[in-house]
Amino acid sequence: MRLAELSERSGVSVATIKYYLREGLLAPGRQINTTTAEYDEEHLRRLRLVRAMIQVGRLPVATVREVLGHVDDDSLGRTIRLGAALWALPQVPEPDEEDEYVQSAHREVDKLLETLGWSNSQALVTISPSYRSLVVAVAALRRLGYDWPPELVVNYAKLMHQAAVLDLDFVETHPSEAEKVETAVAGAIFVEPVLQALHRLAQEEESARRYGFE
Amino acid sequence: MRLAELSERSGVSVATIKYYLREGLLAPGRQINTTTAEYDEEHLRRLRLVRAMIQVGRLPVATVREVLGHVDDDSLGRTIRLGAALWALPQVPEPDEEDEYVQSAHREVDKLLETLGWSNSQALVTISPSYRSLVVAVAALRRLGYDWPPELVVNYAKLMHQAAVLDLDFVETHPSEAEKVETAVAGAIFVEPVLQALHRLAQEEESARRYGFE
Repeated sequence: MRLAELSERSGVSVATIKYYLREGLLAPGRQINTTTAEYDEEHLRRLRLVRAMIQVGRLPVATVREVLGHVDDDSLGRTIRLGAALWALPQVPEPDEEDEYVQSAHREVDKLLETLGWSNSQALVTISPSYRSLVVAVAALRRLGYDWPPELVVNYAKLMHQAAVLDLDFVETHPSEAEKVETAVAGAIFVEPVLQALHRLAQEEESARRYGFE
Repeated sequence: MRLAELSERSGVSVATIKYYLREGLLAPGRQINTTTAEYDEEHLRRLRLVRAMIQVGRLPVATVREVLGHVDDDSLGRTIRLGAALWALPQVPEPDEEDEYVQSAHREVDKLLETLGWSNSQALVTISPSYRSLVVAVAALRRLGYDWPPELVVNYAKLMHQAAVLDLDFVETHPSEAEKVETAVAGAIFVEPVLQALHRLAQEEESARRYGFE
């Protein structure tokens, strides 16, 4: 298809597509003469993903370029390629390792991983931003004196593991490796707002079931 | 306890406590003479909650006052008092009801609620911000052409319902009505970052289990 059709089918303006091409977020089309290039379904898919990262995920262009670099690097294994997407999401600030609540949150999260038997996550603690996010979240809770029982967090973790199984099962329904990785990146952007809205809705539902509308 | 002790035990400076008192976020202490007031455990608990809403939840002072107004209004039933907290959280912008993707997201979410048998949520669709958040999240997904199967969203919803059951079971372990409602408010602020971090960590764990670290 020509640029005009790519624009129409994707809903992205020609000017924006040209900007993405210049920024290297979209591979050039196949040049058929000096003024015309031809684009295919792969361009359409990639364009959709770039828009998702920029418009919904609010990632800066440099981060999008970095994520796509990993997505396209088939010398990397799938865990790393999927992880690259997840790790490019906006992260919480680095925890202050001198802080006593951060230190005790580290111990608490390490114990949680042990209880859960998440040995892969245990192997990744020094580099995983998700681990650091959890430490920051737990430290915030404890700093304010909230003593949620560790079993509660274990149970939340088990539910989130079931969600992760659903995520990856869905990723695996896609035929090509490129589509698998792209679906994982899109999922990293779209799943969280959906889960958050479902959680709030479920709280309303459950609350009304228990206490009615009075 | 005196103001100085309240400050020390809560970790909140005397100046900030005085500010919260002036803004009506904290009830005045029991005046024991013209210059000294006495505070109790209830003040300490409330102070912790106010800090959680302001520092962690990043709610504006006016919203905190509004939430506390509901929390303290024992003429309201528990569903409404718990909901008041949830509904005061930062919400997504209102969906554009003229937009075709928003309209079809409404139909899709309505169908989801029917499939799930969430009849209370069905009764709340016109007023619930959580419902609107879900519509916005689904519309974003569909606008970019991602066709996640509806069964996947049903399965995510069932997991989030189990999380909501855990939330409310924990709320109910607290003895007084005031503590129940305060725990629900704190939960609305703290649970989401914990679930999000656990979800990302679980994705890493599951991904490494399936594909290794290659």
